[in-house]
Amino acid sequence: MNPENIYSEDKWLPFNGFSPLIKVYRLFHDLTPEIEFIINSHTFPVTFKKNKFITSPLHRDKCAYLIINGIARGFMKEDNQEITTWIAKENEFVGNVSNFWDESEPSDEYIQALEDVVAIAVPYTMSKLLYLNYQVVNYVSRKMTQLHYLQACERALISRLQSAEKRYLRFIKSYPELVNRVPLKYIASFLCMRLETLSRIRSKLAMQFTEIHPS
Amino acid sequence: MNPENIYSEDKWLPFNGFSPLIKVYRLFHDLTPEIEFIINSHTFPVTFKKNKFITSPLHRDKCAYLIINGIARGFMKEDNQEITTWIAKENEFVGNVSNFWDESEPSDEYIQALEDVVAIAVPYTMSKLLYLNYQVVNYVSRKMTQLHYLQACERALISRLQSAEKRYLRFIKSYPELVNRVPLKYIASFLCMRLETLSRIRSKLAMQFTEIHPS
Repeated sequence: MNPENIYSEDKWLPFNGFSPLIKVYRLFHDLTPEIEFIINSHTFPVTFKKNKFITSPLHRDKCAYLIINGIARGFMKEDNQEITTWIAKENEFVGNVSNFWDESEPSDEYIQALEDVVAIAVPYTMSKLLYLNYQVVNYVSRKMTQLHYLQACERALISRLQSAEKRYLRFIKSYPELVNRVPLKYIASFLCMRLETLSRIRSKLAMQFTEIHPS
Repeated sequence: MNPENIYSEDKWLPFNGFSPLIKVYRLFHDLTPEIEFIINSHTFPVTFKKNKFITSPLHRDKCAYLIINGIARGFMKEDNQEITTWIAKENEFVGNVSNFWDESEPSDEYIQALEDVVAIAVPYTMSKLLYLNYQVVNYVSRKMTQLHYLQACERALISRLQSAEKRYLRFIKSYPELVNRVPLKYIASFLCMRLETLSRIRSKLAMQFTEIHPS
């Protein structure tokens, strides 16, 4: 079954009549009607129930996903331990980009919905088609990849801060929308600390806050 | 003093007559003579002595650097401790890209030469000029930024592996050219472990190797 057929021509009805990917692209540059037509035709909405896998190493995915509602995490497995490497929310892309960019290298990453997720599937074949034929898409994609690069640098930095408390304080600053949405065990894993350490830090900070702002 | 003037028209003599940046761009796409002329005119060779800063938060740099010879590291300061966030070698770019991409956000990153470094300075003004006028440069830059993104993801992953030995083994696999070139204290910092831990792991691995391959 081809998921595109599920939605047929009505697929964009719940999204004001067009693919939300167009709105994201337009943040960086105007698009021609031709490009918008291709995006509307090739992308399609998908949903993933909470805790379900969006993609896994066993399943070489052919799409990236633009999250419209919900949050998701990426993780790897190391000796039966899961290591959360990133957490994404609305208007962010998730997917095993290395599948697309470097087809020789299968990714060992899992992507899991942490809430019920509504997303737009963006087939890699469409991205290739756009890159080849529409230079403006290379411009837009360069800008978006730069943002992803800076986000990845932040993930590489936060894990290297020596004190667990500093890592959590930086998490609050860098990811304020995630603090109260993501189960603590995943935040702890993302911040390279045990769940008990994270709980202790949160209690301490809550206490300090109460002392400064007594009710 | 404008560094471009130091080299005048002979600046590319030690580099087979043209900017090495052209060779890097050409790995991804052919260039027009016009683009090559702009690159040859605007980029210029620079050198940094071992241990000198290539850039620092105090100095809002106007260039990225393509390393031709030598290695460099990026680091941040946290409570008088230096945290090494990346190490780069020949044919890699270094620079505070956030200075260029997001001018509102000054970076708190230092970049230091770990060997005598020969590099090509790539002024951000030139990159902007190329992006605006030559679509193929957006294509090339998109491809290069994708590589940088994957490298940043690797840096974010390696620091999250739970066992120090696994982090070092992955370092050997992911950065084989750096293992014997970078002072151990920087490798230890990059891998979120104490120098003593790294030394212990290296001794253990050397011993295992000797047992397997007795002389």
